[in-house]
Amino acid sequence: MTAIGPSLMCADMGTLQNTVKRLDEANVDFFHFDIMDGKFVPNFTMGPDMIKSLRAHTNKLFDAHLMIEEPERYIDLFADAGCDMISVHAEAATHLQRTLQKIKNRGLRAGVALNPATPLNCLEYVWDTVDYIVLMTVNPGFAGQKFIPMTLKKITLLKNLIEDSGRNIDIQVDGNISYEVIPQVLERGAEMLVCGTSCLFRKEESLEHATSNLRHFLQGLEEKNLANS
Amino acid sequence: MTAIGPSLMCADMGTLQNTVKRLDEANVDFFHFDIMDGKFVPNFTMGPDMIKSLRAHTNKLFDAHLMIEEPERYIDLFADAGCDMISVHAEAATHLQRTLQKIKNRGLRAGVALNPATPLNCLEYVWDTVDYIVLMTVNPGFAGQKFIPMTLKKITLLKNLIEDSGRNIDIQVDGNISYEVIPQVLERGAEMLVCGTSCLFRKEESLEHATSNLRHFLQGLEEKNLANS
Amino acid sequence: MTAIGPSLMCADMGTLQNTVKRLDEANVDFFHFDIMDGKFVPNFTMGPDMIKSLRAHTNKLFDAHLMIEEPERYIDLFADAGCDMISVHAEAATHLQRTLQKIKNRGLRAGVALNPATPLNCLEYVWDTVDYIVLMTVNPGFAGQKFIPMTLKKITLLKNLIEDSGRNIDIQVDGNISYEVIPQVLERGAEMLVCGTSCLFRKEESLEHATSNLRHFLQGLEEKNLANS
Amino acid sequence: MTAIGPSLMCADMGTLQNTVKRLDEANVDFFHFDIMDGKFVPNFTMGPDMIKSLRAHTNKLFDAHLMIEEPERYIDLFADAGCDMISVHAEAATHLQRTLQKIKNRGLRAGVALNPATPLNCLEYVWDTVDYIVLMTVNPGFAGQKFIPMTLKKITLLKNLIEDSGRNIDIQVDGNISYEVIPQVLERGAEMLVCGTSCLFRKEESLEHATSNLRHFLQGLEEKNLANS
Amino acid sequence: MTAIGPSLMCADMGTLQNTVKRLDEANVDFFHFDIMDGKFVPNFTMGPDMIKSLRAHTNKLFDAHLMIEEPERYIDLFADAGCDMISVHAEAATHLQRTLQKIKNRGLRAGVALNPATPLNCLEYVWDTVDYIVLMTVNPGFAGQKFIPMTLKKITLLKNLIEDSGRNIDIQVDGNISYEVIPQVLERGAEMLVCGTSCLFRKEESLEHATSNLRHFLQGLEEKNLANS
Amino acid sequence: MTAIGPSLMCADMGTLQNTVKRLDEANVDFFHFDIMDGKFVPNFTMGPDMIKSLRAHTNKLFDAHLMIEEPERYIDLFADAGCDMISVHAEAATHLQRTLQKIKNRGLRAGVALNPATPLNCLEYVWDTVDYIVLMTVNPGFAGQKFIPMTLKKITLLKNLIEDSGRNIDIQVDGNISYEVIPQVLERGAEMLVCGTSCLFRKEESLEHATSNLRHFLQGLEEKNLANS
Repeated sequence: MTAIGPSLMCADMGTLQNTVKRLDEANVDFFHFDIMDGKFVPNFTMGPDMIKSLRAHTNKLFDAHLMIEEPERYIDLFADAGCDMISVHAEAATHLQRTLQKIKNRGLRAGVALNPATPLNCLEYVWDTVDYIVLMTVNPGFAGQKFIPMTLKKITLLKNLIEDSGRNIDIQVDGNISYEVIPQVLERGAEMLVCGTSCLFRKEESLEHATSNLRHFLQGLEEKNLANS
Repeated sequence: MTAIGPSLMCADMGTLQNTVKRLDEANVDFFHFDIMDGKFVPNFTMGPDMIKSLRAHTNKLFDAHLMIEEPERYIDLFADAGCDMISVHAEAATHLQRTLQKIKNRGLRAGVALNPATPLNCLEYVWDTVDYIVLMTVNPGFAGQKFIPMTLKKITLLKNLIEDSGRNIDIQVDGNISYEVIPQVLERGAEMLVCGTSCLFRKEESLEHATSNLRHFLQGLEEKNLANS
Repeated sequence: MTAIGPSLMCADMGTLQNTVKRLDEANVDFFHFDIMDGKFVPNFTMGPDMIKSLRAHTNKLFDAHLMIEEPERYIDLFADAGCDMISVHAEAATHLQRTLQKIKNRGLRAGVALNPATPLNCLEYVWDTVDYIVLMTVNPGFAGQKFIPMTLKKITLLKNLIEDSGRNIDIQVDGNISYEVIPQVLERGAEMLVCGTSCLFRKEESLEHATSNLRHFLQGLEEKNLANS
Repeated sequence: MTAIGPSLMCADMGTLQNTVKRLDEANVDFFHFDIMDGKFVPNFTMGPDMIKSLRAHTNKLFDAHLMIEEPERYIDLFADAGCDMISVHAEAATHLQRTLQKIKNRGLRAGVALNPATPLNCLEYVWDTVDYIVLMTVNPGFAGQKFIPMTLKKITLLKNLIEDSGRNIDIQVDGNISYEVIPQVLERGAEMLVCGTSCLFRKEESLEHATSNLRHFLQGLEEKNLANS
Repeated sequence: MTAIGPSLMCADMGTLQNTVKRLDEANVDFFHFDIMDGKFVPNFTMGPDMIKSLRAHTNKLFDAHLMIEEPERYIDLFADAGCDMISVHAEAATHLQRTLQKIKNRGLRAGVALNPATPLNCLEYVWDTVDYIVLMTVNPGFAGQKFIPMTLKKITLLKNLIEDSGRNIDIQVDGNISYEVIPQVLERGAEMLVCGTSCLFRKEESLEHATSNLRHFLQGLEEKNLANS
Repeated sequence: MTAIGPSLMCADMGTLQNTVKRLDEANVDFFHFDIMDGKFVPNFTMGPDMIKSLRAHTNKLFDAHLMIEEPERYIDLFADAGCDMISVHAEAATHLQRTLQKIKNRGLRAGVALNPATPLNCLEYVWDTVDYIVLMTVNPGFAGQKFIPMTLKKITLLKNLIEDSGRNIDIQVDGNISYEVIPQVLERGAEMLVCGTSCLFRKEESLEHATSNLRHFLQGLEEKNLANS
């Protein structure tokens, strides 16, 4: 089943506790936190205290996406804050295997995030240390950017590589994941959707409606898929 | 009159909009935002979207304290988000005069923040470009640290320097500003208090009570001061 | 037709305006500017003011080769100076896709430059955002270095990849491009030659003669090629 | 006698050889080269090859102002290019004494440059290793900025410190040095003027006229000064 | 024949001269020095003076493994200290080809070291400039870590690539090389063993015994191998 | 009584254990370890494992001089290795007060080291957090450099500042401390001598003789001093 993960960076930042409670009841699958350092990406968003503050209000998975340099230095900070999953950028982690291992040693799921232009071969020797791959479908740093079509091919290739590895590794897609894009990324193998302003945080409908609509849409796709197969 | 500025980093991060509304009604003087980049200080907190999100809910001054390297690059980002005042660290701004000028050119008040160990002479040639000085009374990066007594002397010296300059420059103090510390910093010349867990965000009383108590305490001090002088 | 692009870093730096006028009349195809930051390469050369100063004296294309870290920060600076083409190094651009897109959004042609040791797979997901590839055939930083033969294979492989992509992407070669090397790089698919001290700026002949000789040499190769095919 | 030093960054960059010849004949005292790395200042200008290219066309002093990080690494590069004087920024040189000593060991005059906001006490322990001090009167990085009045006081203080030291150290001022500013900086003790668009490279007069006018203006000031003393 | 190279970082650091003499007599093949900068890896070990100090006490090869950023800057320092071989990390060398060439120009053997997660394609264009490849089988930085099984596959692939290249390039393996691991790395093509606490510096036996046991073990493997082939 | 502290970086690096034992018996007062990161200073020396290895062989104080960037990150590493005193450079510690406090929280003595050109005012607000000041009398990075006379004045000024503070803070001098220099630094207030090739590690005498001679020389100076006062 496809997992829905609201990107909290796209919500009203001043009322996140309420947002988390409502999305928890609307039964999303995980919460996605974008962490920025002004260096790896030219922006700032939130930190471990925000995660701590929301932790008590839901039992859903907390997924931190570290868009920061030297992520190895900050694994403990985010693990202590209550994350269940942490992804780091291959472009930023000189010691990628050790950084992933450090996440796993804390009992969390370890992810590798890739910028749109980054090739998949950087994953070649971490298949046994990684739990999920975050394919950026926009360039990270700001909300509201346009989906990069070239990344569709990358999902297909990644899915093949994962199947070859025989391992259970999820594909998360992040960036302008809209109703138009979703069928395309799902049929290529994506399983976790980071949902922002394109499909979940929309002015024209409530969070509850948006989540419910999205869930129905996903179920429709799955049934069609079943029928086809 | 002494200005009360809640440090929002010390509040429950998930309900900041509500906190801002309540503190606005409780009539605080400004809101203090701590921005971190994981490099200048080893932590992350919030970014321009948080500031934007809260901007609509109060007319009080928004004061961003940039604990980041190369702050010059990010002035526009925070000015656009709705800040009225921005302070940068002297230790982080190679071109301090230009960075302050850039803040002023945006129509905002420009501040210089100093770590506890940083001497005052770095201010010597920016008296005419600065509107307020932030004296850190703890080392920046995390909430809940202990006041550093050595900084009391620094307030006195800074107050003298400002008086010598004949300019209207405020002294802001930031870090473990408790009821015990407040009389000491005020009598030495501090005018803006960044209020965190030591005097405002306290478990034992509501935000409204805490603000009201603090205001009365400050008024008491001011009256005593008047009587003495 | 093979494009001739004088590398102005190899000319007498004090008389570049005259050099540009003469080469313009000698009908070179583009002008190549090497920009260095002392970090990505351990040297310094020229900046946007040089480009601006020469812009009025020719209508030929201006091609800036940014050998600098964080190139994304400087695209506007060089676009404003009058460049028609900008290439950035894959080794220096963390957000390669966004950097290229930024160049294209300014209406310029976007290039990716690769150091001699850098593999081609870093291009895998930017085929639709790139207009030309700069294969360094020496290590960048200084004029007068020796051609690295290993890069010949790279031209062939790149040409194949471009043909597979079905796109119109030029191959530029840069570094010790001599009469001896030219036939080898052309037959493998190079289309733009960055011409320095090895074939254009030579003590033994005038710029006009050197350009004319080079043009004839290239035409001879093209005719032979035509005859062969 | 006050020394006139054209800032070549302010001239037409494409015809510098001619400019240098004409200014040499117009009898300026030294040539000032601004070197930038895109990090210490957000711009690029020229490098050692430009200096080499102009070296043969004048016997006047060549003065390189290194606006770059880790200047110690590049002393040899600029000494080899033909500089007679090199200044480095105190804000950029962790090992200031060693960097100055390295310049002197090459037989050149060693200078320390200070940004407008930088206090003079960073010079306290290099009086015996420094030959000239460059007081920036604008923030470095771009031509055409406005003189910062706060730096006038700094000239006076620096002059006093130099006199106290009993040493023969020149004060160079750099940044928007106009006819209006010149009397003010000279009466406070400046001896070397870096001359840019404000007094030398002006659209309304030839380089020869501009230099001659400036020389007369300076002589007039000196005579008046003599008369007064 | 498989080469035994004690990793001196694993010995008692206070008595290295004696250790080197004893291992020289026990006839090891080379000495391995780990150099760290606290940036590329978060630790510090030794520097050129240690190498100089030991150089007089053995004629065996000295092999420096530079776990440092910008290794190009330090080649001369380690060549002057008496190294015969120097390896640099592909993740740290922006100009990999030039850095290797610089090592070779000093008359030394040039190596490329790869972190466990780094793919082999970064070697694609340096086959003719490299003499040996160091495959890290643990993440570098500290002694006493666990062998990463994923790296076994990498040895096989590297061996194939080297055979395809037709060149004489050695494979060195570094990190938790134990008796259990040795047969597996040798049968896949490793030729140089960096020997640490897992097989050479062991509490239960003398250095002489440990070396002799290891040599016999390796000979046994070679004979068995011969018999099998 | 003046403390003698051999700088182990100046000894034969391969036999330090023996050197430490002999110097321990010769009754030196502390052992000085120079730690370098190739960034703050362009060299490498030793790390925590060397300190650990020597710790068992003497009860004298171990004093680590961290010539590294971001020293705050490495305090625990060196405390765990067995240091009794750690000094960090004011030029490298953005959060100087916190870094010193971190050293003291580990139960160690905290020192601030200053490059020759660094003014004393950076100490102004750490008098109550510092136990000793290291005045570099050469530029750090390499052994065998020349004493910088300008630093003599600095010792006098520092001694006055310490006396004004009423605190018990030691002055350590480091760099080319010879028999000629010693009387000059002692009479100005230095109490701890970092002893290298200029007075302790000398070819012409044994370590034992050198230490004994130095001790007698110091006693002679002290007696003369007593007689004078």
